Amino acid sequence: MGAVWGKNFTITIFGESHGQAVGAVINGLPTGLDLDVEGLKHEMARRAPGQSPVSTPREEKDDFEILSGVFKGRLTGSPLAFIISNCDRRSGDYEKIKDVMRPGHADYTAAIKYGGYNDFRGGGHFSGRITAPLLFAGTVARQFLKTKGIQIAAHIKNIGGIEDKHLDPMSMDIAVLSEISHKELPVLDDKQGEKMRDLILQAATEGDSVGGIVECAAYGLPVGVGEPFFDSVESTLSHIVFSIPAVKGIAFGAGFELAALKGSQANDPFSYDNGAVRTKSNNCGGILGGITNGMPLVFEAVIKPTPSIAMRQRTINIRTGQDVDIEIQGRHDPCIVPRAVPVIEAACAAALADLILAL
Amino acid sequence: MGAVWGKNFTITIFGESHGQAVGAVINGLPTGLDLDVEGLKHEMARRAPGQSPVSTPREEKDDFEILSGVFKGRLTGSPLAFIISNCDRRSGDYEKIKDVMRPGHADYTAAIKYGGYNDFRGGGHFSGRITAPLLFAGTVARQFLKTKGIQIAAHIKNIGGIEDKHLDPMSMDIAVLSEISHKELPVLDDKQGEKMRDLILQAATEGDSVGGIVECAAYGLPVGVGEPFFDSVESTLSHIVFSIPAVKGIAFGAGFELAALKGSQANDPFSYDNGAVRTKSNNCGGILGGITNGMPLVFEAVIKPTPSIAMRQRTINIRTGQDVDIEIQGRHDPCIVPRAVPVIEAACAAALADLILAL
Amino acid sequence: MGAVWGKNFTITIFGESHGQAVGAVINGLPTGLDLDVEGLKHEMARRAPGQSPVSTPREEKDDFEILSGVFKGRLTGSPLAFIISNCDRRSGDYEKIKDVMRPGHADYTAAIKYGGYNDFRGGGHFSGRITAPLLFAGTVARQFLKTKGIQIAAHIKNIGGIEDKHLDPMSMDIAVLSEISHKELPVLDDKQGEKMRDLILQAATEGDSVGGIVECAAYGLPVGVGEPFFDSVESTLSHIVFSIPAVKGIAFGAGFELAALKGSQANDPFSYDNGAVRTKSNNCGGILGGITNGMPLVFEAVIKPTPSIAMRQRTINIRTGQDVDIEIQGRHDPCIVPRAVPVIEAACAAALADLILAL
Amino acid sequence: MGAVWGKNFTITIFGESHGQAVGAVINGLPTGLDLDVEGLKHEMARRAPGQSPVSTPREEKDDFEILSGVFKGRLTGSPLAFIISNCDRRSGDYEKIKDVMRPGHADYTAAIKYGGYNDFRGGGHFSGRITAPLLFAGTVARQFLKTKGIQIAAHIKNIGGIEDKHLDPMSMDIAVLSEISHKELPVLDDKQGEKMRDLILQAATEGDSVGGIVECAAYGLPVGVGEPFFDSVESTLSHIVFSIPAVKGIAFGAGFELAALKGSQANDPFSYDNGAVRTKSNNCGGILGGITNGMPLVFEAVIKPTPSIAMRQRTINIRTGQDVDIEIQGRHDPCIVPRAVPVIEAACAAALADLILAL
Repeated sequence: MGAVWGKNFTITIFGESHGQAVGAVINGLPTGLDLDVEGLKHEMARRAPGQSPVSTPREEKDDFEILSGVFKGRLTGSPLAFIISNCDRRSGDYEKIKDVMRPGHADYTAAIKYGGYNDFRGGGHFSGRITAPLLFAGTVARQFLKTKGIQIAAHIKNIGGIEDKHLDPMSMDIAVLSEISHKELPVLDDKQGEKMRDLILQAATEGDSVGGIVECAAYGLPVGVGEPFFDSVESTLSHIVFSIPAVKGIAFGAGFELAALKGSQANDPFSYDNGAVRTKSNNCGGILGGITNGMPLVFEAVIKPTPSIAMRQRTINIRTGQDVDIEIQGRHDPCIVPRAVPVIEAACAAALADLILAL
Repeated sequence: MGAVWGKNFTITIFGESHGQAVGAVINGLPTGLDLDVEGLKHEMARRAPGQSPVSTPREEKDDFEILSGVFKGRLTGSPLAFIISNCDRRSGDYEKIKDVMRPGHADYTAAIKYGGYNDFRGGGHFSGRITAPLLFAGTVARQFLKTKGIQIAAHIKNIGGIEDKHLDPMSMDIAVLSEISHKELPVLDDKQGEKMRDLILQAATEGDSVGGIVECAAYGLPVGVGEPFFDSVESTLSHIVFSIPAVKGIAFGAGFELAALKGSQANDPFSYDNGAVRTKSNNCGGILGGITNGMPLVFEAVIKPTPSIAMRQRTINIRTGQDVDIEIQGRHDPCIVPRAVPVIEAACAAALADLILAL
Repeated sequence: MGAVWGKNFTITIFGESHGQAVGAVINGLPTGLDLDVEGLKHEMARRAPGQSPVSTPREEKDDFEILSGVFKGRLTGSPLAFIISNCDRRSGDYEKIKDVMRPGHADYTAAIKYGGYNDFRGGGHFSGRITAPLLFAGTVARQFLKTKGIQIAAHIKNIGGIEDKHLDPMSMDIAVLSEISHKELPVLDDKQGEKMRDLILQAATEGDSVGGIVECAAYGLPVGVGEPFFDSVESTLSHIVFSIPAVKGIAFGAGFELAALKGSQANDPFSYDNGAVRTKSNNCGGILGGITNGMPLVFEAVIKPTPSIAMRQRTINIRTGQDVDIEIQGRHDPCIVPRAVPVIEAACAAALADLILAL
Repeated sequence: MGAVWGKNFTITIFGESHGQAVGAVINGLPTGLDLDVEGLKHEMARRAPGQSPVSTPREEKDDFEILSGVFKGRLTGSPLAFIISNCDRRSGDYEKIKDVMRPGHADYTAAIKYGGYNDFRGGGHFSGRITAPLLFAGTVARQFLKTKGIQIAAHIKNIGGIEDKHLDPMSMDIAVLSEISHKELPVLDDKQGEKMRDLILQAATEGDSVGGIVECAAYGLPVGVGEPFFDSVESTLSHIVFSIPAVKGIAFGAGFELAALKGSQANDPFSYDNGAVRTKSNNCGGILGGITNGMPLVFEAVIKPTPSIAMRQRTINIRTGQDVDIEIQGRHDPCIVPRAVPVIEAACAAALADLILAL
């Protein structure tokens, strides 16, 4: 369990932070799909570290190598396997700190679950680095969705309490979609983005970190995507989004605000608009009964603050059985949210591809 | 897709609101497990309608019949199938209203997805009635978890903006667990419960409805439940919780509040407590790297207001292609949240059973 | 594991020989499919006992009841659940013989696997009775295949060494297809059928039983059904055919005779025939690389002799730990092969439906 | 579909004959398992071409590279990914022969299924080369089984009609197990092996090929492995064995000979043997009701003659739409059976591991 995801579009993921390579095998996308390698590189670069003061100064180029499943630039119908080699590995020091559990990380849960046999260096299989293959896999799915007229966009909705505007829940704004993926901080309101930037840099200075919220939307979906009950859009999407380390919540449409609404406010009235069926609001996030209703699919996911911080923290040494202090050295992201944005988009694309291929 | 859930503990669900019966087939729980039939009846009664002014006056006894998989009161190891007959069916009037799409319901998405062949009476397979077999299935899982010392409890955290206290995220309170399942409104603070009750009755009077939030916790979990990446506790739990109609968001531990926290605040420090490893706070909701850390598992789920309301709403008639008014007749729940509480507990139990059986 | 089969067309099976009912939940066939209830009854009658001297005199009508998934005679798109009640249950005597393991049955393996908690009456979940729901499920799949122009036929190829002719591996013979399902012994050569009948009746007289071989073909398949490697036609078909109790071998096309052939004999030459691609022989059974090639799909399955025989056998009593004699009382089939024929057809239909729905 | 196999022990396979690499990702084996790399190399060498006159003179070393999942020589609990690079690729000539369908190969079915987008060079994903990763994956499973006292052995039972002796169906012969994997032609009776060798070399001289039968046994299995109905041992094993290109039939125990036996002959009598339960014959191949009974598991699989032969054959050109002659150039195996032996063993190990991990 844990390595394979999907029923129609499948992803098998592998890799550890300091192993030979991370990668994945994907299967199920239509044969003949034209693979946009430059598009893949662009998305991988958005997640790659070392590109801006708001992320880690570690540099990893995240160059990928495709091993199978592509012939003359197109998908063959056979499994597509790819790897991203781990170049910037500095494993030397891990042996001496391996018994001290970093708070907020999987060090402790993994040590117990795997009886100490797990590769603990840099978080091993629990490293955020494993999102690189997820990003690649989801981006290929996204290229498939694009051939169906479906576009996905995400932005930073909140960092440390500073709020961006909402994505338009009623219709697609092409300008936003084309710009957002090129920004250092992908926000709609650049003034708020400036404030977020300041907050991140301040946290970095303090040896601390900040969390945030990513909002994501999919435009151009047909009516009828998603299955009743166990494979609802919400079920399928949340399953893969919660695979991304640091995501701790997800909400569709008006989300947790629905608790305070009346039915008469929450229900989205249907209406004909030049023959097309639309709703006059989108509190349901484009999903009714687990199935898309033709309106934009909208959801938010909360990302916890990067657990790796330089500040002194209390924790335990599982070898000595004692409480100890820890000060985590190294080159960490003061805020992982900007790098999570393309990963959330990719996860969304993967989920939608899986459901659309079921139709 | 959609009918089968689970990798180790599987649930295959079936039924439509006005069909012959709803039910499920479950498989994978340990052979020899003593089935507590009275416990099952108690849980089914918590969800059954017609029991209090805060829910629908429809009366359904939700009596279940076990068809296989139980012999001499114990699980045989073969699939356990059960049905709940649909007794209170009044299908007569559906034919004439079938083209008018109820806002907030799956009428429209189902009509399009299934080309009009779906059983539209009372929402068909999209009816909240399908949660009755989920409740039964999850309750059997819960009886299995109990043999492992794991207890699950949920309460109403919020209705219409009125807040209850939090469940204790640090340790189990036996008194709470034993009392809560017998309350008309399962809350911790009965004064707040009174206010919720008033709000629900007022909404009922207005022909409107209200939503809310359910908080759920699992106590007594060992360290190491859950798989990395795709089968994290959050992924597995959210997948099944979002199967429950009306759930639109889920958040673990501090949830969406993590966006405003610093890493130094969000990280839960580890500490030895008489030899046992504990954390000093529980912002992660008992899950690190997708795996339980031995602290209580805590999550919240938001339930949208019942979409069936008596007030006039705007919508469409898909046969005539015109915008029309709708006033939904019948006996509806002004607030579905109280009846959702045991269903959320059951979904949580099912998810944990599936993951624990993987160990 | 064990209760759920299929990726696109799923079957969840349940029931025990002497429980309340056997049945299944099926899902994934196209919405709107017209259910031919009379056709279902005809197939169920072919498998039902008590109809001829060559099978058991037990009478079970195998009436089915559909609980969900059908509305106005058509598939709704939601799971179709059905049950077949167990009417002719005589459980009284099982308690005293439960410790004596019937040779050739699952009594011993089940007793050990389930620690004695399994329902041992009449073989419990291991009874041939569980093929009744498989037959129903596969027959619905077969009705779906028929809408695609695909026909399935099986006959008795061999009983006790007496051989019938082969089904035509090159093209469909409508006359054969329409007649065969109405015969007491579904053979092509009725003279050989007479000999088989005599052999079966003689075995019955001796308190013994005989086995045989069923040959099955599917006509009208398009090119391209089946997936490379793990979900080849052979893999998918054999998986479900071996679910049928008593099947111990399966072979496609020339099968085990391929061992003695040269490549130049075994390879089926391709040729154009009025623009259509055909092969000049069909040693591959219509499958190349795990994928249909447009020729008839042909396979054989061997059925072991009914293990329930009246003759005295040596076995063990697992309570006393001693070797004992056993003489199995009751009304047993001297040859289960005739009743297995429609079940093999149904399993074939289920496998093909699963693969065709993946296209 | 097609790329992922297994419920508890999963294999995701990828690669094409002339792509960058073939490989697989495996998951689910116990953490901490000591990986015997030399043992892996030995098994890979048994399948590798270029080692003897009875196989192809192509030389591929089949060196593997492990990318993840192993740390300090042991399984980490995370997915184990490995690749085998394709070194001896001569792709140049494929373009001009791509439209001429080789009889007995997947050329035609793949061309139609994938609309011409498949990598046709050397059979692409349908090449026997993909059995290299299956062999690796299954061998790791076999190392796990060995820690449980389970041993697997296979031999050539038949080539071109020349028969070897049977493996002992009643008990394990250590000497056989240790010798057989080192033979050029793994047979029990070396005289028969000589005759097989002559036959293969003669077929090679004639530009033809021969098929055969592999018999495989697993010793040391506990009672209770396998699930009723859909995940029987026979179902699970046949599913993966039919994934191996060229396998066209499988039979357990007495297999197709059961058709001619009486129940009194076929049933294996149980008996106590120094307190242990055994059967006095093993016609059921160690499986009753789909579940192991503690006796050796025995099955045979038939391998069709290598379809690549030098002799002139009739076939079609799908570009010109004409019947043509084909003479396949190149370095082909006159008999693939010897190289299939370790692959069958590996597939058997994978199936048993998957089922044992379900217990």
